[in-house]
Amino acid sequence: MSMKDKIAIIGAGCTMFSENFGQDYSDMMVESSGEALEEAHLTGKDIQAAWLGTAFPDAGVWKGRSGMDLAQSLGMFDIPITRVSNYCATGGDAFRNACHCLLAGEADVVMALGVEKLRDRAPQESLVKMMVENGHPIMQKGFTAAGTFAVTATRHMHEYGTKAEQLGRISVKNHRHAVHNPKAQYRSEVTLEQVMRSPMVAWPLTVLMSCPTTDGSACVIMCRAEDAGKHNEDYVLLKGHGFSVSTGWDLPFFDPHHHFTAYRATEVASRKAYKDADVTDPRKELDLCEVHDCFASVELLTYEDLGLCKRGEGGRLVDEGVTAAGGEIPVNLSGGLLSCGHPVGATGLRMLYEITRQLQGKAGKRQVPDARLGLAHNIGGPGAVSSVTILGAR
Amino acid sequence: MSMKDKIAIIGAGCTMFSENFGQDYSDMMVESSGEALEEAHLTGKDIQAAWLGTAFPDAGVWKGRSGMDLAQSLGMFDIPITRVSNYCATGGDAFRNACHCLLAGEADVVMALGVEKLRDRAPQESLVKMMVENGHPIMQKGFTAAGTFAVTATRHMHEYGTKAEQLGRISVKNHRHAVHNPKAQYRSEVTLEQVMRSPMVAWPLTVLMSCPTTDGSACVIMCRAEDAGKHNEDYVLLKGHGFSVSTGWDLPFFDPHHHFTAYRATEVASRKAYKDADVTDPRKELDLCEVHDCFASVELLTYEDLGLCKRGEGGRLVDEGVTAAGGEIPVNLSGGLLSCGHPVGATGLRMLYEITRQLQGKAGKRQVPDARLGLAHNIGGPGAVSSVTILGAR
Repeated sequence: MSMKDKIAIIGAGCTMFSENFGQDYSDMMVESSGEALEEAHLTGKDIQAAWLGTAFPDAGVWKGRSGMDLAQSLGMFDIPITRVSNYCATGGDAFRNACHCLLAGEADVVMALGVEKLRDRAPQESLVKMMVENGHPIMQKGFTAAGTFAVTATRHMHEYGTKAEQLGRISVKNHRHAVHNPKAQYRSEVTLEQVMRSPMVAWPLTVLMSCPTTDGSACVIMCRAEDAGKHNEDYVLLKGHGFSVSTGWDLPFFDPHHHFTAYRATEVASRKAYKDADVTDPRKELDLCEVHDCFASVELLTYEDLGLCKRGEGGRLVDEGVTAAGGEIPVNLSGGLLSCGHPVGATGLRMLYEITRQLQGKAGKRQVPDARLGLAHNIGGPGAVSSVTILGAR
Repeated sequence: MSMKDKIAIIGAGCTMFSENFGQDYSDMMVESSGEALEEAHLTGKDIQAAWLGTAFPDAGVWKGRSGMDLAQSLGMFDIPITRVSNYCATGGDAFRNACHCLLAGEADVVMALGVEKLRDRAPQESLVKMMVENGHPIMQKGFTAAGTFAVTATRHMHEYGTKAEQLGRISVKNHRHAVHNPKAQYRSEVTLEQVMRSPMVAWPLTVLMSCPTTDGSACVIMCRAEDAGKHNEDYVLLKGHGFSVSTGWDLPFFDPHHHFTAYRATEVASRKAYKDADVTDPRKELDLCEVHDCFASVELLTYEDLGLCKRGEGGRLVDEGVTAAGGEIPVNLSGGLLSCGHPVGATGLRMLYEITRQLQGKAGKRQVPDARLGLAHNIGGPGAVSSVTILGAR
């Protein structure tokens, strides 16, 4: 059964993605939901069910273990609120579960809200230290996010001749895009030389090829498509959604599915989303994408996982400017995670906010002329959990 | 739109609820899902979407932050798996989200699995210490689960003359029931004197009025009702479900809804479930209940929240044996959390396992003759999150 044209986003909101020292976990929820509710001409009392996406309640403040924290922050009581957590794909998964509830007819107006407070650290042990000490006795040792993603970058370089400079150019592109995004953490252009000479994190990934640590919240409000006009004439439609888990936390290095040059979860999720949306040639049919560039190499591999080009041709897409502003299929016009940062549970919903504004023609200087169809891609864990959402203009 | 008779449980499984030192987090998932899959005549490859309920991935082993951990343990790849977390109501919420997906038509066979490893502690800081240090600067100080629930017990005693001995009798009853549950952690009868003289935790709650800390996993597999006969003739039907969040973690003492003698979340959730199931007189229509007796007082208040008696009459129900085995409406024939323990994410699904076995007539010496309709109630946080599920024999 296809999800196509059954659900509408009637409101979207997003805080600054930044070091939001002046806002706590709850304040950010109030801001992102406030923008979304205002757009939908609703108040919190109109929301009949909600999903809260927070991935690391123990990384910063002690919040986000339960839907309760959304209830308390927004004063939304006596409704069901689920907390969803799926590493960096948490936001996409919160959205997905909210859509199911609408389609099940269990609620008429729902909210999916992601929030993460990472820059105000609680005075406790380092999360990475806890993971290394308490995780798998072999696999978890030496584990870092950059290291996990670097192994797919190096394998891609080995198999297809991809160059570190091509990864660098993705960073240059996304930072250039972010100049026009008032909600991005970093809004300065960087040169290829700056990217390549910035400190090495895990070869070939430099600091400027890695997303920063950031606070933020984003929110979308949905209803079934037939009800959308009642709330907001300027809604956008869900065309398709896919979500997939391809491997486990400790498994990527042994899993036969993992050929190290692709994220199978994205391949599976995007094929489901394309099927829903009747998309057969994504490069031609999509007008823009927001993809999960937690590291520059992930954006490059994702071009291929999404079928925007053949396997091994991701580097050429960068060289030819296909994915830059004004190119054939602009990717990460928001600046991506590299410029916006990555408040984990919020990122997938920020992407939906960005695509929504583009499809409404309200993306300011980032606007793609006559954008009709956009894709948001959110990946988590060691590349093992992926969410792909396709939205369309009404 | 009512959920009634649209979804069937075609398989259920449950590990021992105990100190499962011989099983790790994954082993328990394999066991509970194995029993459920076998009953449904399915393998892991037939599951099209799954929900993992784990509330405290950082309390024991470093597992359960993502659906990935279910994928890895059961070898179930290339499907969507969501991790749900909603404090002690996590299991009920995992089940609920799985039901939405079925009703949305996004999958035909789904799994909801809860698991928690609490007795093999990771060598890290105490969770309670972290909560107290990093939580609300006033509300979180001195916070304990027993303390939070004790305040509703004492207020109920003040308002209605409820006696500590009545709480003690709930413990005696549930421990007596557990003698016949081979999966319960504690299977010895206790006397009222033992309960009352056991060490005080938070007045009036003694150790024997408090659930132990436990490892365990439980699992249910569902499909839409029209497909159930294809898998297993001995299925049970979902009659109704409600879920509600009544307040926030820090708020219960200020929230005007919280009158200290009831859990509003249960009132709201049960009314929704009764509406779905066309239940108008729960005491007459229900044949049995599993309720969330994390502390004996919660069971007593829950009688009233569920409408099994009038407000203030919970103590009388105990005195008259209405909720004991053989009584008018037996409650916690499994032994409840007081005897089974409370592996947090698993508890709500263990209750569904128990009700399923009762409705199938397969509950052994615990069997209620001709059980046709049963209710499972799962509450979490400071009484703020509640899940109520009603199942019926086919």
